[in-house]
Amino acid sequence: MSKVIVVGIGPGEYEQMTIKAANALKECDVIVGYTVYIDLVRDHFPGKIFLTTPMTREVERCEMAFEEAKKGQTVAMICSGDAGVYGMSGLIYEVSVKYPEVDVEVLPGVTAALSGAAVLGAPLIHDFALISLSDLLTPWEKIEKRLYMASEADFVICLYNPSSRKRHDYLMKACDIMLKFKSPDTVCGTVKNIGRDGEEIHVCTLAELREMSVDMFTTVFIGNSQTKEIGGKMVTPRGYRM
Amino acid sequence: MSKVIVVGIGPGEYEQMTIKAANALKECDVIVGYTVYIDLVRDHFPGKIFLTTPMTREVERCEMAFEEAKKGQTVAMICSGDAGVYGMSGLIYEVSVKYPEVDVEVLPGVTAALSGAAVLGAPLIHDFALISLSDLLTPWEKIEKRLYMASEADFVICLYNPSSRKRHDYLMKACDIMLKFKSPDTVCGTVKNIGRDGEEIHVCTLAELREMSVDMFTTVFIGNSQTKEIGGKMVTPRGYRM
Repeated sequence: MSKVIVVGIGPGEYEQMTIKAANALKECDVIVGYTVYIDLVRDHFPGKIFLTTPMTREVERCEMAFEEAKKGQTVAMICSGDAGVYGMSGLIYEVSVKYPEVDVEVLPGVTAALSGAAVLGAPLIHDFALISLSDLLTPWEKIEKRLYMASEADFVICLYNPSSRKRHDYLMKACDIMLKFKSPDTVCGTVKNIGRDGEEIHVCTLAELREMSVDMFTTVFIGNSQTKEIGGKMVTPRGYRM
Repeated sequence: MSKVIVVGIGPGEYEQMTIKAANALKECDVIVGYTVYIDLVRDHFPGKIFLTTPMTREVERCEMAFEEAKKGQTVAMICSGDAGVYGMSGLIYEVSVKYPEVDVEVLPGVTAALSGAAVLGAPLIHDFALISLSDLLTPWEKIEKRLYMASEADFVICLYNPSSRKRHDYLMKACDIMLKFKSPDTVCGTVKNIGRDGEEIHVCTLAELREMSVDMFTTVFIGNSQTKEIGGKMVTPRGYRM
């Protein structure tokens, strides 16, 4: 059957994949993905055809998946974390209009906001906003506005892509915005290499977070006004009237 | 070992659980949870001791888990979706201060925002805000403010608990707020009974969503200014400069 399945593989560790995702990868013919993610799964699915494209060639990667599927193959397009949170499912649907004969299916996975939260304790629990600090495809003014509004509304905020070589001061800029509405004592946390070698957590205040340098493999959590530290963990209560 | 593991079991279907979650449930002695969730997993884990408490007895349920763990048992506390998104991990950490001899671990799962998104297409993809319309533990004014701010900042918005017997008009009230900043033509979607019998999706406009009545088993998605409908699916592009 001609089919592209977009599969969220979770943070990296094989066991953090859903059973359904693992079954789909076992049953497909071809696995397509960014090189780093292919390396995470390759050993668990012997005998598959693996196709990769580098980081910025996402449209090409989608077309590659559909071209393989057109040959009658079942193709799995893998994404780290979830398929639909900064993942490939959107682009796959956009490209799918050129391939009406190919079916598309999406299998969700555990995104870094969830896997990182589990390592840090319970930072989300309640309403939260997920914001990527990457301005590659989004104007910085839009990102700034989201940081302002999410802070003013007392959301827990989870930041993806908090840093890169070219954006080394973006986390500091983001903290300065959040500090306009959130207390400098707001409990924050960072998780590096979630579910992979070198996993590392850090719980601190928003004032301290501003001075930290994090890398692109780090997910950052900023608490709401109720978030507290309990035994080294970052914990947000369920509401405002406990 | 004395341990409480908070386990997110995903939307309901056994295969949507992570491998790690399924292994933890296989290896534990006691499974604690809300009656409805216990019924979802019971048949897959024969020989376990199952303990339940009704919906509103969450603190009691946590204490029950720790009391069992104190006896030397490994106890799994299950949550639907993720353990840390409107889940039990926060309360478990809060109650844990009374039980310093018991270890706590959290295993994440696929929350309804992710599993619902996969069924609808690719509604999230980019920055989004998750808001619960339940005012049981959060003042309605706070919820209103979050709806305003998230709409003004052009977040995709995912609504949990959009309705209940006592709150039948809350979705309409929320739509009226979002309509102050979002176009009535904004692409929206609803998913009912994700990954369970009777799964049902609906893609519509924000103006149409305002007139819909949904039940408490429905998750609601409101697109950002870029979200579109592609072949009956709700799809948000990766950014603003495709």
